[in-house]
Amino acid sequence: MELELAGELAQGADTKIVLFVMDGLGGLPHAETGRTELETAYIPHLDRVAKESVCGFTLPVGPGITPGSGPGHLALFGYDPLKFNIGRGVLEAAGIDFDLQPSDVAARGNFCTVDGTGRIVDRRAGRISTEDSARLVAGLRDIRVDALKQGSGRTEVFIEPVREHRFVLVLRGDGLSDAIADTDPQAEGAEPLPLRATSPEGEATAGLVAKFLEAAKKYLADKAPANMLLLRGFAKRPDWPAMPDLFKLRPAAVAHYPMYRGLAKLVGMETLPVGPALEDSIATLRENWGRFDFFFVHYKYTDTAGEDGDFDRKVAKLEEVNEAIDSLVELEPDVLMVTGDHSTPATMAAHSWHPVPFMLRSKWNRADPCTMFNEVELQQGTLGTFPAKEALPLAMAHAGRFKKYGA
Amino acid sequence: MELELAGELAQGADTKIVLFVMDGLGGLPHAETGRTELETAYIPHLDRVAKESVCGFTLPVGPGITPGSGPGHLALFGYDPLKFNIGRGVLEAAGIDFDLQPSDVAARGNFCTVDGTGRIVDRRAGRISTEDSARLVAGLRDIRVDALKQGSGRTEVFIEPVREHRFVLVLRGDGLSDAIADTDPQAEGAEPLPLRATSPEGEATAGLVAKFLEAAKKYLADKAPANMLLLRGFAKRPDWPAMPDLFKLRPAAVAHYPMYRGLAKLVGMETLPVGPALEDSIATLRENWGRFDFFFVHYKYTDTAGEDGDFDRKVAKLEEVNEAIDSLVELEPDVLMVTGDHSTPATMAAHSWHPVPFMLRSKWNRADPCTMFNEVELQQGTLGTFPAKEALPLAMAHAGRFKKYGA
Repeated sequence: MELELAGELAQGADTKIVLFVMDGLGGLPHAETGRTELETAYIPHLDRVAKESVCGFTLPVGPGITPGSGPGHLALFGYDPLKFNIGRGVLEAAGIDFDLQPSDVAARGNFCTVDGTGRIVDRRAGRISTEDSARLVAGLRDIRVDALKQGSGRTEVFIEPVREHRFVLVLRGDGLSDAIADTDPQAEGAEPLPLRATSPEGEATAGLVAKFLEAAKKYLADKAPANMLLLRGFAKRPDWPAMPDLFKLRPAAVAHYPMYRGLAKLVGMETLPVGPALEDSIATLRENWGRFDFFFVHYKYTDTAGEDGDFDRKVAKLEEVNEAIDSLVELEPDVLMVTGDHSTPATMAAHSWHPVPFMLRSKWNRADPCTMFNEVELQQGTLGTFPAKEALPLAMAHAGRFKKYGA
Repeated sequence: MELELAGELAQGADTKIVLFVMDGLGGLPHAETGRTELETAYIPHLDRVAKESVCGFTLPVGPGITPGSGPGHLALFGYDPLKFNIGRGVLEAAGIDFDLQPSDVAARGNFCTVDGTGRIVDRRAGRISTEDSARLVAGLRDIRVDALKQGSGRTEVFIEPVREHRFVLVLRGDGLSDAIADTDPQAEGAEPLPLRATSPEGEATAGLVAKFLEAAKKYLADKAPANMLLLRGFAKRPDWPAMPDLFKLRPAAVAHYPMYRGLAKLVGMETLPVGPALEDSIATLRENWGRFDFFFVHYKYTDTAGEDGDFDRKVAKLEEVNEAIDSLVELEPDVLMVTGDHSTPATMAAHSWHPVPFMLRSKWNRADPCTMFNEVELQQGTLGTFPAKEALPLAMAHAGRFKKYGA
């Protein structure tokens, strides 16, 4: 469904929707047992929900496409991930839950190493430690003051460490533009590219960044383990229609990890403070139950286990969710969706393109033959394999939140 | 998937993909037995591959659309057949494996008969024999010399017989244009249309063709069984992104029939010399296994039998493929796809719009309940019915040849 149409159809209602996302949910059969993580796990409570649900698989972006976390979640929030692209700088800022303002310009930074002639030896400076990186960031924060004095008095510069060699650069001020080319040549042996605007409107901002870069270069020159930086993906926060306006929902995100909080903010959700454990999420949900009517609940650890190639731990994490699902059902959401943002089969130790298990429970369900929540049983599901961006419209309908189309 | 996106996602890998196309694969139930050709055939080896595959049906162009060989194959090569159109002249040249250059202009020719007043009596001259046609072509080749002398000294004219009343006219030279209208009025009783350009840029080329046409008309006037010719579908070779650049593959075509070799060339495959028998294909595949990482293997005879309405022969041809499939599996491709370019039910004795049986075998498959390779059993397939143009992206994913989309 196009967002414009969703906006036309959406209406308020006294109903609640929960989107429970198990990150990296889908799996593949274990070489020895022939069973996936979900088939292996003992998850009677999830199975019971499946019995009461309409079931199938979501296709996050398209056939054969392995989604990153950004596209995978945007699709579940109802936004076509092929149309709604997030600039790399913005995604990086979202990833540390940086409160990006509409006029801010963000870029992703890498600390790197260059040789005596200025050519890049290692674009990631050997993936320096997060601690080393934080130390260099602190130094850069000091020199930025000088850069600011030379530049516009109204422009603030934020530099935030991310992880290993990565950091975020954010400029805040009036009239800033993101029409700036990468300085990262994406190749070793080459020199960092000179900072330049990609259109005339970018020139003033490019001038500011160039001054900062010059000072940063001097500061870093004698440092170790990195002695230079690269910038790429200059971008502004996208000006997307927000979920509250579009879907006429009061949406909240119950997500501990910064990346998911950041993504939720980009579509206009309120992010609730929450601890790392699943019980924290449930508690936050319960406490805020009256204040919102859409809850995105994010569970990270299925993906982490999958990415680590740890089949047994992924199974254990699924069983942890199984234990908690009843307390979620007890809140009596009008619509409960359980799915993932993509598959992360432990056998692949990576995100994959495989469709993602999905179930939707509401009082308006037709009969669906699924009796268990796993990749084999869900093949019986009446929803089949469908684009993930259609999950929210479906939930809206089941929640009585879509008007009739046409007379 | 859009080709631009495929291009962004594609990455090199040390994996091999085989696309085995049984032309006209899909069928319909026999009136007496109620079983399709595939259900009737004894094909245990194909069934075994189905057990190890994810299965479903491809939709070559769209619901209800009966594809010609061009669109059917383009879809399997990953090119949306509704966007990638081949001009009739180019398709005809491809059909005889004519090595069309980017600046060449090709047109499809018909020998026809006209009456004393110049009106068309039979647009196909009673489908004259290929031999008669070849004799007339030889005569035209002689007169083309005169036409050339009158035209630009740098323009070459090729005339190649195709089959029955059909031939191809190719002009080669500098600055040629395909902005030329058909002379074929597509109606009997009408006169051939005068040659004219469809835009100013076509005028010079139209002038050359007009001179050739005039000489040809004189030459043919007293000939039999055809005494005139018609031209249509002036076209240049399309300038499409090539598979090697786009998908970062080294693709090879193992196809004996000129049409399929021609189609493969249009998307940048190398066409390997190969005999007409299936064992020739397998031998060619084996000999070239190390040199390429994508192989399109074409098997024609299922379609020929279907077009002839010969149900039993189509069954026999399926059984022939069954016998050979093991030697293909023994090559251990990372991804093996078995499908067709369209259905050709023997009961219809023609191409049809029915979805086409499909299976994909790789080590990253989820369980799929299909245990046999036929139109009834494949209804259990987890892939369902999907656009044929998505088959290659899916194979790319299974071959580890697609990067993640978004971070």
